[in-house]
Amino acid sequence: MKNNALYLRIAKIIEEQINNETFRLGDKLPSLRTIQRIHNVSINTVKQAYLELESKSLIESRTRSGYFVSKSSKRKFSLPSVSSLQSSAVQKDPVDLIDKVFGSLKKANITQLSLGVPSPSLLPIAKLNKSLIKTVQTLEDGGTSYEPAQGSSNLRRTISKWSMVFGGGITADDLVTTSGTMNAIFNCLLAVTKPGDTMAVEIPVYFGTIQIAKSLGLNVIEIPSHPITGINLDVLKDNILKIDVCCFTTNFSNPLGCLMPDANKKELVKLLTKHNIPLIEDDLYGNLFFGTDRPKPCKVFDEEGIVMWCSSVSKTLAPGYRVGWVAPGKYKDKIIRQKLLQTISTPLLYQEVIADFMENGRYEHHLRSFRKRLYTNCLHFQRSVEEYFPDNTKISQPQGGFVLWLELDERVDTAQLYDTAMLSNISFAPGRMFTLQNRYNNCMRLNFAQEWDDKMNNDLKLLGEIVKNSI
Amino acid sequence: MKNNALYLRIAKIIEEQINNETFRLGDKLPSLRTIQRIHNVSINTVKQAYLELESKSLIESRTRSGYFVSKSSKRKFSLPSVSSLQSSAVQKDPVDLIDKVFGSLKKANITQLSLGVPSPSLLPIAKLNKSLIKTVQTLEDGGTSYEPAQGSSNLRRTISKWSMVFGGGITADDLVTTSGTMNAIFNCLLAVTKPGDTMAVEIPVYFGTIQIAKSLGLNVIEIPSHPITGINLDVLKDNILKIDVCCFTTNFSNPLGCLMPDANKKELVKLLTKHNIPLIEDDLYGNLFFGTDRPKPCKVFDEEGIVMWCSSVSKTLAPGYRVGWVAPGKYKDKIIRQKLLQTISTPLLYQEVIADFMENGRYEHHLRSFRKRLYTNCLHFQRSVEEYFPDNTKISQPQGGFVLWLELDERVDTAQLYDTAMLSNISFAPGRMFTLQNRYNNCMRLNFAQEWDDKMNNDLKLLGEIVKNSI
Repeated sequence: MKNNALYLRIAKIIEEQINNETFRLGDKLPSLRTIQRIHNVSINTVKQAYLELESKSLIESRTRSGYFVSKSSKRKFSLPSVSSLQSSAVQKDPVDLIDKVFGSLKKANITQLSLGVPSPSLLPIAKLNKSLIKTVQTLEDGGTSYEPAQGSSNLRRTISKWSMVFGGGITADDLVTTSGTMNAIFNCLLAVTKPGDTMAVEIPVYFGTIQIAKSLGLNVIEIPSHPITGINLDVLKDNILKIDVCCFTTNFSNPLGCLMPDANKKELVKLLTKHNIPLIEDDLYGNLFFGTDRPKPCKVFDEEGIVMWCSSVSKTLAPGYRVGWVAPGKYKDKIIRQKLLQTISTPLLYQEVIADFMENGRYEHHLRSFRKRLYTNCLHFQRSVEEYFPDNTKISQPQGGFVLWLELDERVDTAQLYDTAMLSNISFAPGRMFTLQNRYNNCMRLNFAQEWDDKMNNDLKLLGEIVKNSI
Repeated sequence: MKNNALYLRIAKIIEEQINNETFRLGDKLPSLRTIQRIHNVSINTVKQAYLELESKSLIESRTRSGYFVSKSSKRKFSLPSVSSLQSSAVQKDPVDLIDKVFGSLKKANITQLSLGVPSPSLLPIAKLNKSLIKTVQTLEDGGTSYEPAQGSSNLRRTISKWSMVFGGGITADDLVTTSGTMNAIFNCLLAVTKPGDTMAVEIPVYFGTIQIAKSLGLNVIEIPSHPITGINLDVLKDNILKIDVCCFTTNFSNPLGCLMPDANKKELVKLLTKHNIPLIEDDLYGNLFFGTDRPKPCKVFDEEGIVMWCSSVSKTLAPGYRVGWVAPGKYKDKIIRQKLLQTISTPLLYQEVIADFMENGRYEHHLRSFRKRLYTNCLHFQRSVEEYFPDNTKISQPQGGFVLWLELDERVDTAQLYDTAMLSNISFAPGRMFTLQNRYNNCMRLNFAQEWDDKMNNDLKLLGEIVKNSI
């Protein structure tokens, strides 16, 4: 999955030079011919590299003067703070807030920065429809029959091939398909916990995970997460005896966007294996990396089968298809039974469409352009926030995925701010949704898997003004 | 939904005369002209009526002699026994047996009498595919977006119209769509119970229901059910204080096929309302009636919103589509939250296809011929069993649905018999699957939603011989 195009390598080199301030804001860049000589490439390759940098708004061309660094990628805003460990018994569920935000999903004309799904305009819908119509005709009994609860063997085989990208070694028989990642996690929790058990999560955490936990009568312990490297393993270690199950998003957590280094993943799996604690690994953003390689999931380091690797195409291709899967390690039989009990089987059609899409390279093709788009959008969003939001705003530095986490002035209450912003038809996810504790009241999550245009820039400007006015 | 065709009314009258032995096996029936005079109808109408009776194998024509009663519909075998109340703490889960039976589902060349789904050959698959391809093109964003958790508004509106058939008064807003009926029941149980609660079910009971209950840590109390009228209300009343939730199949229970009379349904709802006990009403067979009218669900008598009416198209149209719904009364908000937690939404496509099918009369059209086929098959199966099985066999008299319940000689162990029958490529559902107690070991369930042909008749003959040899 390495991207070896020459122009991209050159663009990367120049981007790094901008990042480390070899070239600063306003600097003129070397001429096309100079770059051509240095790298011994064609003039067209250099042009493509400059176009690439321009598309990310890193440089701009001025008529008859050449190219200039248009924005410093030196970050003006610092990273969000690391939270403390909290697991007090008196937790307050932000359920009313979540209901309110979800209640606005289908309103028209809203700039929808709250939801954790990509804008449909970024998805290959026509190609999916084509694949779907083709697939309908091939299904035995038109898909009216129940499938075995383990799920489509075509899809499982294709995912197992795909897992080679990160050195997976996951076989088709290791996998069980589910109705999206949430459903995979739900099944995992039903399979390995009982009411009263304690689940550890990274914090801030995707609200769906803790909502499921509460609905199943689980206690939640919120483990601090560093905005770059994720879960603090020392804190986890200190609390390991209280924990019955872990549920972590190891690659590009939601909302912080952090990525656990491989060494940490290895250590995590070793620690949990020692204590026989199942790890539900929520890897639904793993394919949306901004770096050069698909990061490994913990599953790769799992020798005893304690890791239940969960993923889907909900963040990358088709949220509404509800196609997900889990490689549940030693808990596989329990997961299959859970699925059988809850819904007997999942519809075959969409599973086959995804298998077809993966098998024929269309998924990989889509991912390549989608990732590029997301990274560019991330830079756009970060810059607009740095330009329009108050100076003491803190902002996450995601290494993949498509959400930004903002920590605002302590006086800001983003739950209140939400109502104000909605008057201007802008929706975001208030920070309080991402914890069971009384914190993150001054935070917000923004979804940047959107069309980037003047309207979006203006809406971020407007949101920045609303924030300023609220202090 | 009354079937007013003249020829059917005349056929019905003659069928009743055969049933009450006005005409006995071998009797010659009145000539076409006689019937024509009596009922003052055309000769063609009488011919149609006789063809109808012939298609049910009730009469046969002999060349140049007229029509004769070919089989007595006087039942040779009596009804299954009514079970005693049992809810002992030491229950034994028949989970290994269930796994074994389900494990054989995909084996080729098996006469599949075990599964509770109709044979694909009885389903309008080509028409469904056509509707599906039409629908794909109309979906906003090709169905890639999440739908609101309550589910397709088109489907909910169509079901609410449809509910007028039984005087429903269910509105689109009363409904929540689910991933099949099992998933509706699962959601209902999650919404209204906590581990340690006690659920009442009719007995014998569909194994899926008690499996869900066990997985959620519920106790199960098995209420005796009369093979014709269903739940014994007196026993229920005597135990009402022990019960936290009821889950009953009021119309054509599985496996007994009994139908609660309206008076009993009213009384049941009144009793449960008084004690504020939610009733999960599993009405997935309601449209498969052999009588003249669609039986009412308890929901019709529900004034306080305690009834959670669950249904689907899994038994009537397309099991694999996983399209079901629930009208959860006062528990609606809880159900929507459960669905959101478990899977966010269900795929829109199949919901829209079913809405289209219902809206355009294709569902009703299919149901009319499907019901007729099922009733005829029921007679065929009953007769073959009476012909080939031992004389002390007891057999249910379903009034709808598509399963038969057989009670065999006490010495027969149908779990063992299952292995023997599978050697001859015949699969049935052993009785022990339908209880948590140690009973029904001499019972079996047969699915008659199959092509009726010589092979099927021979397989029933073979099964009868296997039973005889095991005594």
